[in-house]
Amino acid sequence: MNAGIKVFAPASVANVAVGFDILGFALEKPGDEIIGRFSDKPGLRITKITGAKGKLPYEVEKNTAGFAAMKLLEHLGETGRGIELEIHKKMPFGSGLGSSAASAAAGVMVINELLKRPLTKRELLPFAVLGEQIADGAYHADNVGPSLIGGMLLIRDNKTLDFHRLPIPKGLYATVIYPHIEILTKDSRNVLSDQVSLKQSIQQSGNLAGLIIGLYNTDIELIGRSLQDVIIEPQRAKLIPHFYDVKDAVMKEGALGCSISGAGPSIFALSPNSLIAENVGTAMQKVFSDAKINTELFISQINQEGAILL
Amino acid sequence: MNAGIKVFAPASVANVAVGFDILGFALEKPGDEIIGRFSDKPGLRITKITGAKGKLPYEVEKNTAGFAAMKLLEHLGETGRGIELEIHKKMPFGSGLGSSAASAAAGVMVINELLKRPLTKRELLPFAVLGEQIADGAYHADNVGPSLIGGMLLIRDNKTLDFHRLPIPKGLYATVIYPHIEILTKDSRNVLSDQVSLKQSIQQSGNLAGLIIGLYNTDIELIGRSLQDVIIEPQRAKLIPHFYDVKDAVMKEGALGCSISGAGPSIFALSPNSLIAENVGTAMQKVFSDAKINTELFISQINQEGAILL
Repeated sequence: MNAGIKVFAPASVANVAVGFDILGFALEKPGDEIIGRFSDKPGLRITKITGAKGKLPYEVEKNTAGFAAMKLLEHLGETGRGIELEIHKKMPFGSGLGSSAASAAAGVMVINELLKRPLTKRELLPFAVLGEQIADGAYHADNVGPSLIGGMLLIRDNKTLDFHRLPIPKGLYATVIYPHIEILTKDSRNVLSDQVSLKQSIQQSGNLAGLIIGLYNTDIELIGRSLQDVIIEPQRAKLIPHFYDVKDAVMKEGALGCSISGAGPSIFALSPNSLIAENVGTAMQKVFSDAKINTELFISQINQEGAILL
Repeated sequence: MNAGIKVFAPASVANVAVGFDILGFALEKPGDEIIGRFSDKPGLRITKITGAKGKLPYEVEKNTAGFAAMKLLEHLGETGRGIELEIHKKMPFGSGLGSSAASAAAGVMVINELLKRPLTKRELLPFAVLGEQIADGAYHADNVGPSLIGGMLLIRDNKTLDFHRLPIPKGLYATVIYPHIEILTKDSRNVLSDQVSLKQSIQQSGNLAGLIIGLYNTDIELIGRSLQDVIIEPQRAKLIPHFYDVKDAVMKEGALGCSISGAGPSIFALSPNSLIAENVGTAMQKVFSDAKINTELFISQINQEGAILL
């Protein structure tokens, strides 16, 4: 058995307070690793899965990474190739950190690297999105885009994957806490009204616009004023015990903004420097430890690389 | 009687397809002129109004320009000054081109110039917004901001007037046609549902974000893809006969986008150069002249100056 190659795709924070379904950024860690190698036996197979507590299927068509890889191989006319994948989940499921997106991104990345990069990352994206879709049901790239490509991405239109990388001011840090509470993405979707008041819609889009202008102009205060979710957070916060306690504590530490990561229960904050990001992390941990809830904490800059060959 | 000074404040296009109540830009023409001069008789008076067909009140408190000027004088502690204003309306009412905003902008501008510029334009804005508010009822700056300050402005939050000037790619031209149809702003507001689907809200904010990114990156095609109003235009278009005929004709000429200016009935298009802007104008005129509707046409770059001393 040859050693093969190993790729990594990072976790990501979707929505980012003001860009529900259309905005996300990649973290430096955690993330998933996939090892890929050629084999004599034709066809794509998943030969090993670790870190998934038996929750992930070995059937290629039902596995996020497998399906993404398969769709890419079909596109490349390479379905006859013998390829084995080992999936090493190194991040939590159902955390709101884009776990399935990381697997899908790693799935296309490993195939592309094995085949000596026939496609650019931009060209890989649609296949990764197809992979995540089988986990999530929706065709959107707010997690899988950043996980694959890196950076903070605005997806103007998910249907056509018209995405754009936003400039990130130096020093911007993300702090993310994953409290060990279970929320199903489905429940997190169901709690949302399918209607929004026109007034809130205007406010939210003003804030999204403000965030983007703040990023382009390196206007940290404007970024802070803009990171206010008036639509999704008020509806989802009740699913996360102590959410507002965490947010209050975080904002007192000088974070620019704090909201729910993806569908939750993870909570993210953005800070203007690493010192504040660390203090924010400590404040987050204290609220949950006082409430006897276990957590995992991640502090990182915006990951500009996305999925990489290790 | 001394000659006094004369200021000009331009018309403006609010909403700009994707920024209902929070986005607007100034045109080079038409606009309003106000002459201001000191007088021996204490207090602010409006001594002359032309071009308004008797529709504008001489009472300072009821007149958009007068009220804005009065509020500014109160702020400056200068209410005892004898000041006369002549208001020369040089643009149509109820056209969707920010007529009352132009008057309000000119009102604060003329006072500030008479008093040797005690305030910056940014500082003048709240008083101009108060002036427009008596005509329009709402405290928002999407017309009066551009009319006073110039450029294309994103108002992140109208309450705090947190506004930002957007970069404008060289060559960007606006074509605006005012068909002689009467729509009351009130009716144009009443036709709007106060609810939006979450899906449309996401789409619209993606387009606003796309427009802003396109402006920062000078990505003309992205600007074009982004100028799609999925919320307001579909509801208001029915108030403007032949709107979709105009839009179709305009898009065939190569415009980047076309939608309703403010509350209508004026229709604006943005084009990547002056030649297309001219062709767009001709196409707009043809639709209305075939329908025997009189029009006024304005073609200009984005006015970067806003209100000026003539």
